[in-house]
Amino acid sequence: MSKRVVTFGEIMLRLSPPGYLRFTQANSFDVVYGGGEANVAVSLANFGIDAAFITKLPKNPIGDAAINELRRYGVDTRYIARGGSRIGIYFMEKGASVRPSKVVYDRAHSAISEAKVGDIDWKAAFEGAEWFHFTGITPALGDNVAELVEEGCKVAKEMGLTISCDLNYRKKLWSTEKAGKVMGNLMQYVNIVIANEEDAEKVFGIKAPDSDVIAGELNLEGYKYVARELYNRFNLRMVAITLRESMSASDNNWSGMLYDGKEYYFSKKYKLHIVDRVGGGDSFGAGLIYSLITGKDPQYALEFAVAASALKHTIEGDANHVSVEEVETLMKGDASGRVQR
Amino acid sequence: MSKRVVTFGEIMLRLSPPGYLRFTQANSFDVVYGGGEANVAVSLANFGIDAAFITKLPKNPIGDAAINELRRYGVDTRYIARGGSRIGIYFMEKGASVRPSKVVYDRAHSAISEAKVGDIDWKAAFEGAEWFHFTGITPALGDNVAELVEEGCKVAKEMGLTISCDLNYRKKLWSTEKAGKVMGNLMQYVNIVIANEEDAEKVFGIKAPDSDVIAGELNLEGYKYVARELYNRFNLRMVAITLRESMSASDNNWSGMLYDGKEYYFSKKYKLHIVDRVGGGDSFGAGLIYSLITGKDPQYALEFAVAASALKHTIEGDANHVSVEEVETLMKGDASGRVQR
Amino acid sequence: MSKRVVTFGEIMLRLSPPGYLRFTQANSFDVVYGGGEANVAVSLANFGIDAAFITKLPKNPIGDAAINELRRYGVDTRYIARGGSRIGIYFMEKGASVRPSKVVYDRAHSAISEAKVGDIDWKAAFEGAEWFHFTGITPALGDNVAELVEEGCKVAKEMGLTISCDLNYRKKLWSTEKAGKVMGNLMQYVNIVIANEEDAEKVFGIKAPDSDVIAGELNLEGYKYVARELYNRFNLRMVAITLRESMSASDNNWSGMLYDGKEYYFSKKYKLHIVDRVGGGDSFGAGLIYSLITGKDPQYALEFAVAASALKHTIEGDANHVSVEEVETLMKGDASGRVQR
Amino acid sequence: MSKRVVTFGEIMLRLSPPGYLRFTQANSFDVVYGGGEANVAVSLANFGIDAAFITKLPKNPIGDAAINELRRYGVDTRYIARGGSRIGIYFMEKGASVRPSKVVYDRAHSAISEAKVGDIDWKAAFEGAEWFHFTGITPALGDNVAELVEEGCKVAKEMGLTISCDLNYRKKLWSTEKAGKVMGNLMQYVNIVIANEEDAEKVFGIKAPDSDVIAGELNLEGYKYVARELYNRFNLRMVAITLRESMSASDNNWSGMLYDGKEYYFSKKYKLHIVDRVGGGDSFGAGLIYSLITGKDPQYALEFAVAASALKHTIEGDANHVSVEEVETLMKGDASGRVQR
Amino acid sequence: MSKRVVTFGEIMLRLSPPGYLRFTQANSFDVVYGGGEANVAVSLANFGIDAAFITKLPKNPIGDAAINELRRYGVDTRYIARGGSRIGIYFMEKGASVRPSKVVYDRAHSAISEAKVGDIDWKAAFEGAEWFHFTGITPALGDNVAELVEEGCKVAKEMGLTISCDLNYRKKLWSTEKAGKVMGNLMQYVNIVIANEEDAEKVFGIKAPDSDVIAGELNLEGYKYVARELYNRFNLRMVAITLRESMSASDNNWSGMLYDGKEYYFSKKYKLHIVDRVGGGDSFGAGLIYSLITGKDPQYALEFAVAASALKHTIEGDANHVSVEEVETLMKGDASGRVQR
Amino acid sequence: MSKRVVTFGEIMLRLSPPGYLRFTQANSFDVVYGGGEANVAVSLANFGIDAAFITKLPKNPIGDAAINELRRYGVDTRYIARGGSRIGIYFMEKGASVRPSKVVYDRAHSAISEAKVGDIDWKAAFEGAEWFHFTGITPALGDNVAELVEEGCKVAKEMGLTISCDLNYRKKLWSTEKAGKVMGNLMQYVNIVIANEEDAEKVFGIKAPDSDVIAGELNLEGYKYVARELYNRFNLRMVAITLRESMSASDNNWSGMLYDGKEYYFSKKYKLHIVDRVGGGDSFGAGLIYSLITGKDPQYALEFAVAASALKHTIEGDANHVSVEEVETLMKGDASGRVQR
Repeated sequence: MSKRVVTFGEIMLRLSPPGYLRFTQANSFDVVYGGGEANVAVSLANFGIDAAFITKLPKNPIGDAAINELRRYGVDTRYIARGGSRIGIYFMEKGASVRPSKVVYDRAHSAISEAKVGDIDWKAAFEGAEWFHFTGITPALGDNVAELVEEGCKVAKEMGLTISCDLNYRKKLWSTEKAGKVMGNLMQYVNIVIANEEDAEKVFGIKAPDSDVIAGELNLEGYKYVARELYNRFNLRMVAITLRESMSASDNNWSGMLYDGKEYYFSKKYKLHIVDRVGGGDSFGAGLIYSLITGKDPQYALEFAVAASALKHTIEGDANHVSVEEVETLMKGDASGRVQR
Repeated sequence: MSKRVVTFGEIMLRLSPPGYLRFTQANSFDVVYGGGEANVAVSLANFGIDAAFITKLPKNPIGDAAINELRRYGVDTRYIARGGSRIGIYFMEKGASVRPSKVVYDRAHSAISEAKVGDIDWKAAFEGAEWFHFTGITPALGDNVAELVEEGCKVAKEMGLTISCDLNYRKKLWSTEKAGKVMGNLMQYVNIVIANEEDAEKVFGIKAPDSDVIAGELNLEGYKYVARELYNRFNLRMVAITLRESMSASDNNWSGMLYDGKEYYFSKKYKLHIVDRVGGGDSFGAGLIYSLITGKDPQYALEFAVAASALKHTIEGDANHVSVEEVETLMKGDASGRVQR
Repeated sequence: MSKRVVTFGEIMLRLSPPGYLRFTQANSFDVVYGGGEANVAVSLANFGIDAAFITKLPKNPIGDAAINELRRYGVDTRYIARGGSRIGIYFMEKGASVRPSKVVYDRAHSAISEAKVGDIDWKAAFEGAEWFHFTGITPALGDNVAELVEEGCKVAKEMGLTISCDLNYRKKLWSTEKAGKVMGNLMQYVNIVIANEEDAEKVFGIKAPDSDVIAGELNLEGYKYVARELYNRFNLRMVAITLRESMSASDNNWSGMLYDGKEYYFSKKYKLHIVDRVGGGDSFGAGLIYSLITGKDPQYALEFAVAASALKHTIEGDANHVSVEEVETLMKGDASGRVQR
Repeated sequence: MSKRVVTFGEIMLRLSPPGYLRFTQANSFDVVYGGGEANVAVSLANFGIDAAFITKLPKNPIGDAAINELRRYGVDTRYIARGGSRIGIYFMEKGASVRPSKVVYDRAHSAISEAKVGDIDWKAAFEGAEWFHFTGITPALGDNVAELVEEGCKVAKEMGLTISCDLNYRKKLWSTEKAGKVMGNLMQYVNIVIANEEDAEKVFGIKAPDSDVIAGELNLEGYKYVARELYNRFNLRMVAITLRESMSASDNNWSGMLYDGKEYYFSKKYKLHIVDRVGGGDSFGAGLIYSLITGKDPQYALEFAVAASALKHTIEGDANHVSVEEVETLMKGDASGRVQR
Repeated sequence: MSKRVVTFGEIMLRLSPPGYLRFTQANSFDVVYGGGEANVAVSLANFGIDAAFITKLPKNPIGDAAINELRRYGVDTRYIARGGSRIGIYFMEKGASVRPSKVVYDRAHSAISEAKVGDIDWKAAFEGAEWFHFTGITPALGDNVAELVEEGCKVAKEMGLTISCDLNYRKKLWSTEKAGKVMGNLMQYVNIVIANEEDAEKVFGIKAPDSDVIAGELNLEGYKYVARELYNRFNLRMVAITLRESMSASDNNWSGMLYDGKEYYFSKKYKLHIVDRVGGGDSFGAGLIYSLITGKDPQYALEFAVAASALKHTIEGDANHVSVEEVETLMKGDASGRVQR
Repeated sequence: MSKRVVTFGEIMLRLSPPGYLRFTQANSFDVVYGGGEANVAVSLANFGIDAAFITKLPKNPIGDAAINELRRYGVDTRYIARGGSRIGIYFMEKGASVRPSKVVYDRAHSAISEAKVGDIDWKAAFEGAEWFHFTGITPALGDNVAELVEEGCKVAKEMGLTISCDLNYRKKLWSTEKAGKVMGNLMQYVNIVIANEEDAEKVFGIKAPDSDVIAGELNLEGYKYVARELYNRFNLRMVAITLRESMSASDNNWSGMLYDGKEYYFSKKYKLHIVDRVGGGDSFGAGLIYSLITGKDPQYALEFAVAASALKHTIEGDANHVSVEEVETLMKGDASGRVQR
C-alpha cells in the first residue's frame, strides 16, 4: 500500500498568455491550477504516493475545475472544504532570455484566505498518513490561515506525522517581521525545512555571508552556514536548500544541498533550458518527501529531488508530471535527451 | 466634428472557455474586456462617435490590457482613474440549444467598486460632451459608487448633458428594495430610460400584467403600461424597452419598443441564430444614443437600435463591432445574409 | 453516503478534427477519451454518484491519460486492469446539416478486447455497489470479453446488484446472429434494458412495425410493441427506449419512452440544435440509472434521463458534463436558454 | 482510366478570421487557397477525375503553398506557369444569422492577372482531356487574361474538348457592358453555361421577370426563361442554374435547374445550415461536369450537382471535399445526418 | 505633459506561420501589423511618449485593423490618410538555429506607396511635436513617397523639430545608386542617423574596413570610422550604430555605439536567445529617441536604446512592448531573468 | 527531366501534444504523417526529385489523409496499395533540455505490416527510376514484409537501380539476432548503407571500439572501423554514418562521415538548437541520395547530406522541408541565421 502525504495551502487559477506573448498582447489565457502545496501533492501522486491536498474552494464551477485538475493527476481531494466567494488567481507571463517572467497576483479574499479554524477535518484527512507539508505562503494569507496551519500541525504532531515546511517567503503577502514571528512559532512543529537562497534571510534573518544572487555565483560555504543555523535554531531533522543560478529567463543552473545535522550533501548541477520554471521549488520538495518517506538515504534523496525539479523546468504548468523512473533515469546520469522509443 | 458621449461604469476581464466547452473542460479561456457602459462606449466609437469611458482600474498589466482593448476600438480612455487592487472578473460559459449560458462573477473588491467621490475628473471628461450614460449595475456596486454616479449626474446636468440609464437589474449585486431606493433617487437626473422585460419590475415594482417571460410570449400592452409608468413616474423624455423571446440559447427573437410620451413605437422583429448574446442590451443602448444624438426621429432611432443589437448577437465578445452602414443595411430590410463582395 | 454504480467496457481514444473540418483537412485532432460505459460512469460521477469504471488499458502514457480523464471527472478507476498492447482508437468527424458525422474505428487488438477472465477483481469493485451496467458493445469485442461480461454479471447477481444493459448494436463488431446469441444469453442476468430504435431489431429481431427511421417519423405504437416484447421475452423490470428524429446532422428531436410492465411512459420531446451528439444514448442511460437508484418514480426517471441526454447534445466530447440541478431545471420546463448569472 | 478535365483561372490566398470573428477582432487568419476554377478542379479530383488546374503563380513560397494545397487533393499542377510578382489575396469574414459574410479583395497585379498569351502550354495540358472549364471571373481579370482564355478555348475546340463556363459576374472586376462584350465573344466556344440568379442579367441583360432575390422567393418560370434565352442566344448544349434562397447568412435553401433544349429539369431542394458557403456554385459546376463526363442523364446530373453543392455548404474552405459515394447517399434521400459508423 | 514624436512610413500586414512552421506547412497565419516607423511609434507610446504615426491606408476593414492595432498601444492615428487600394503585406517565417528567418514581401501598390504630396496634413500632425522620425524604407517606396518625406522634413524643420533617420537599406526596393542619391538629398534635413553594419556602405558607400559580417566578429574601429564619416559628411548631431553578431537564427549578441562628434560611446553587450528579432533596429531607434527627447546623456541614451532593443528580441511581433521601468531594470544590470512577483 | 527515386516502407500517423506538453496534459494532438522511407521521399521531392513512395494503406479517410500529405509535397503516390485494416500510429512527445522525447508506438497490424508479396506493382513503380531506398524498419515489420522488400530489391536490381538502405535498428520490432539474419540477407542487393552510431553494432555486431554514446564524445577512429567493416563485409559502394552528440533534448551536435572504399570523408559539425529531431537520419539519407544521383563528389554529397539534416532539426514534423538552395547556402558556410528578405 502506498504511503500517504497530506499537504495544505492555496490552489489558484493561473492564467498565462500563450507562448511568450505579453499580457497586453494576449487574446486568450492558458489555464492551469496551481499553488505551492498543491504542486507538491500532484507531483507526489505522479510518483505513486497517496497524496491528499487540503484547501478551501468556492462552490462554483471554477472551484470544481480546480478540484478536477487535482483529481486528474490522482490527488485525493475529499478533504477540501467548499465555500467562500472566490478562488485566488494569478496571472503569469512567461519571460525569455533577458526578459523576466512576470507574475500579477489577484489572490486577496480567496476562499482559503478567509477560511477559519474548524473548516478542515484534519483527523479524517490525516488518517493513515505519515507526512504533512505546508509552505510559508499559507500562513502568510492571514492570521486566520496561520491559525489553521497551526491547528493542522498540532493534529499532525499528535498523530505522529513528519512535518515539512518550505519557507517560500512572499514579500507581497507579509513583511519580514511578521513572517519571522509567525513562522518562528510554527517551527516548533516542523521537522524538515526547505528553503531557497533568499528565504532564510527574509524570514529569519539568517544570511549567507557574501552571496550575490543577481550575479549568479554560488556561495557554498554560505549555504552551509544557513542550513546549520536553521537546523540548530529550530531543532530540525533536516534542512534542504535549492540552489538556482539564473543566467537568464531561459537558462538556469540548478542544484541543491541537504544538511542532516551531520553532513552537508551537495547534488549534481544541471544546466537547464527552461520551458516553465514555476513550481521548481515545489517539485524539489515533492522529490525530497518521496525519497525520505520511501526510506532513501540523504544523498539519494537530494539527488532525486534535484533531478525531479530539473525535469520540472521542462514541463508546462505549475506541477511536475514525471514518474519515479524518469527521475531515476536522469539521476543516473542520462541527460542526453535521446529519444526514448 | 463628431458628437461626444461619456459613459461610466465597470469594465471586467471576461474569461470564456473556447467554443461550447464547459468550464470544467476548458484548458484555456478566451479573453475580452467588457461591461455594460464600456460596451456602449465601444459600440458608439465604432459608429464614429467620440466616446469616452470612465472607470477605475488597477495599475497593473491587466488593467493596461483593459484600457488597450478600449483604445483599440477608438474609445477615449484618458479619464480612467488608476489604482485599487484588482479588475473585476467574470467567467462566461456559452450555452447552446437547451443549455443556457452561465456566468460566474468574481467582481467584489474591484478598483471601481472601491472608488470614491473625488477619483474622477468629471468636468474634464464632460468637456464638449452632449450625453452621459450609465447603467443600474454601477450604483449597485456599492454606496460609494452610487455616490460617484450621482456626482457624475450632477456635473452632467450642470453642463447640460442628456442623461440616459439602462436599468439593468442584477440580483447578485443588490436587493430589489435597495435598487428601488438608490435608482429612484438617481432618476431625478435621468432623461431616458432603457429597460428589458424584468428591470422595471425588479427595480421599481412596475409589472407588465400577464407577461410570462419563460414561455417567450410578448405582451405588448403590458410593455406599453410599463413604459408609460416609468415615463410618468420619473418625468422622462423617453423610455425604450428591449423585447427578447428566448426559444433556446441558440435561437431568440429580438425587437424593441419606444415611448416618447406621445406615441408607442414598435420595431421590426428579428429571428436570431446566436453567436454571442452578451451585450445585446448594451448594443441597443448604443444604437439608441447614436440615433438620438444625431437627430434621428423616434421610429428610426428604435429601428436602428434594434438592428444594431440584432447584429450584436452575431458577434463574439461583449461589444458590438458594426458600422452605421452595416446597421442601416439591415434596418432597410436586407437580412438575407448574402455575401458582401 | 453516495450510491455506488459500476460500469464495465471499453474506453477509447477519440480523435476529432477541430470544428467541422473533414479528416483530410485536419492538421490536429481534438482528444477526448470515451466509450459507452465510460460515458455512463462520467455522467453518473457528475451527478454525485460514486461511479466506478472497469476496463483494461495498456501500461503506457496513453493509457494513463485515459485514466486521468476519468479521474478528472471523479470516476473511481482503481479497478482498471493494466496491460495489453494498445488502447482502442476511434476517429470522429463532426457532421453538419446534410452531412452526417463519420466514425472510423481502429479498435481491434485493444487491451480490453484481449482481456481474459481473471483480469478483473469483480468482488472488490462491486463492494458497496448497488448497480452494474454494461452495453452490447462490450461482449461484441470478442468471446473472451463476452465471458468477462458474464463473469461480471454472475458476481453482480450474487452480490445483489441491479444490472442494466444498453443493447447498442454495432454492425462493424458482429453479425446480428452472433449478437442475438451472445446477448440472448446475457439477458438472463439483466434487469433493465435500454435500446434505441434499431437495437432490438438488430439484436433480437424485434421490429417495430411500420417504423421508418430515415424519414424521421416516430411510430409510438411500434415502440410500445418493442418494449413489451423485450420485457416479456427476458423477464425484465424495465425497458427504456430513446427516440431520435434526425432532421439533419445539426437538428434532431429527442425523447424517450419507458415500460415497466404496467404502463408506457412517454417523455417530453426536445428540439435540439446539436453541438456533439456522440454519447447521447449513454447520457440517457446515466440519467435513468441515477433516477432509479435514488428512488425516483418511472415518469420522473424517464424525464430526467431525456432531459439529461438532451443536454448532452449541447456538450463537446463523449460524456455528459451536467449536474443534477441543471437537468432538473430543464426537466421543469426552462428550455429558454436565458443566461444564468 | 479516369476522365481528364482541365480548368483555368485564378487561385488566391484566402485569409479568414477564425470562427465568427470580425476582421478587426482577429489575431490570426485561417489559410486556404481557392478560386472558382481551382475549386472545380479540387472537387473533381475528390470525385476521382484526373483534374488539372492551370494558372500562373509567383515563384515564391506562397505560390508553392498554393500548388501544394492543390496537389494535396490530387489536382495535376504541372501546367501551372510560374512567375509574376504576387498571388491574389482575398480576405473573407464569415457572417452569421443577420450578419452577411464580407469579402475584401486584394487581387490586382496577381501573377495570373498579368499573364500573357504564350505563358500556357495548352496543348500539353489538354493531352488526353475531354473537358475545359473556366468562369467569368477569369476574363474579367484583364484583356490579356481574356485573350488567354480565348486562346485556351480555341485549342480546346481544336482538340475536341467540351467547354463549360460559369458566368460568375463580379462587379468589382468589370462593368456589365464590358462583361457582356467579352463574355459574348467567348460564348462562341462554350457548350455548357452555368449561372446563378444574377449572372445572366448582369452579363447579358437576360432578366427573369419578377424575380426578387432579396425576398428569397423563387420564380421558376423566370428561370426557365433565362435558361432558354441563354441556350438559344449562344447555341448551347445545356444551361444550368443554381437557385439560392437566402434566409440568413446561416440558413439557405439550395436547389438547381437544368435545361437541355428539350426539357426543364428541377432538382430537390435542400434546407441548409451553413458552415461555409464560399464555393457553393463551383461545387455545383464540379458535380455537373462529373456527371456529364461520366455519362449520366440530365436529371441525375442535376441532382448530383445540387447534392454535391449542398454538401459543400457544410465544409470549411473554398473547395468541396466529398466523394461520389457521399454525394449519392445524399441524392438518394438520406439527409438525416445520422452518424456513419 | 508628455513629449510628442511623429513618425512617417509604411505599416504592413504581417502574416507568419505559427511557431516554427514553414510557409508550406502553415494552415493559419498569425497577424500583426508593423513597419519601421510604426514600430518606433508603438514603442515610444509604450514609453509614455505622445507618439503619432502617419501613413496612408485603404478604407477597408484591413486598413481599419491596422489602425486599431496602433491605437491599442496608444499611438495617435488621427493623421493617417485613408484611400488607395491595398495595405502592403509581408510574409514572415521564423527561423531557428541554422535556419534563417525568411521574409516574402508583397508591398507593391500599397496605399502609402502611391500616396502623393498633399495627402498629409503635416502642420496639424506636427503641432506640439519635438521630433520627426523616418527610415530609409519610406523614400525607397517611390519618388512620390520620397517627395512626401521631403515635404515632411521641410515642415518639420520650419517648425523646429529634431529629425532622425534610420538608414535601413532594402535591396528589394531600390539600388544602392538610387538610395545614395535620394537619401543624400534628404540628409540635409536630418540631425541624427541610425544605421546597422550594412546600411552606411550600401547607401553611401561608407565601408568599415575589414568588417566581416557573416563571421560575426565586430570591428569596433571600423564602426568608429563609419560613424565619423556619416557625422562629418552630413553635418549631423549624432550617429548611432546597432551591432549585431548573429551566431544563429536563435542566438545573437546585441550591442550598439553612439558618436556625438566628440566621443565614441559603446554599450554593454547582451547575449540573446531570440523570440522574434523583427523590429530590433526599430526598438533601438525608439529607445534612443525616448532618451534624447527626455534629456538623457549619450551613454545613458545608448544603454537605454540597446537594453530596450535587447528586450524586443524576446517579444513576439514587430513592435517593442516594454515599459521604461523594464528597460531600466535591464540596463542597471539585472539580466538574470528571475521571476518578478 | 528529373531523376526518379522510389522508396518503400511504412508511413504512420504521428500524434504529438502541442509544444512541450506531456501526453497526460494534452487535449489535442498535432497531426503529421511520417516514416523513415516516406520522409526520404518527401525530402527528395522538396529537392525537385521525382520521388515515389510505396506502401500499403487502409481504404479509409485516415489512409487518404496520409496520401494527401505525401501528394502535398509532390510525392508520387500512385503505387501505394490500398487495403488492410489500419494505419500504424505513433505518439510523439517532444522533450526539452534534460527531458528526452518519448515515442509510444501503436503500429502492430498496420496495413503494410500485413502486406504480402504480390501487393505491389514494382515494375510499374520502378519505370524510369534510378534508385531504390528502404530502411531496416521495413523488413522488421514481419517476415512477409521482409519478403516484399526482397522482392522489390530483386526487381530493382534487374532494372538496374542503385539500392540504398538505412539500417535503422528498432529494438521494439525485432531482436538483434533476427535483424542480423534478415538484414544480412538483404545486404546482397544493397549498394549504399547509411547508419548511425548504434545500428551497425545492433544489427551486425560491428562495434566501434571505445565509443561512448551517452557521454557524447565522438570516436572518429571507431567510426572509420565500422564503415570499413560494413563496406568490406557486404561489398558496398559506399557507407555513410551520421554522428550525433546529444548534449540534451534541446542541443545536439550533428555531423557525418562517408567511406567510399578509398577515403574517409568527415563533414563540418553543426551545433543545433532543436525544433524537432525526428527524421534527422532520414533527411541525411535524402540529402545523400540527392547528391549522388545528381553526380556530386563524395565530400560534397556528405556536406550536403549533413547540412540538409542539420536544417531538418529546425523543422516541425517528420520530413525535411527545405530546398536545394537552402541547403547549399548553409553548406557554403552561412549559419548565421540572418533574416533572408
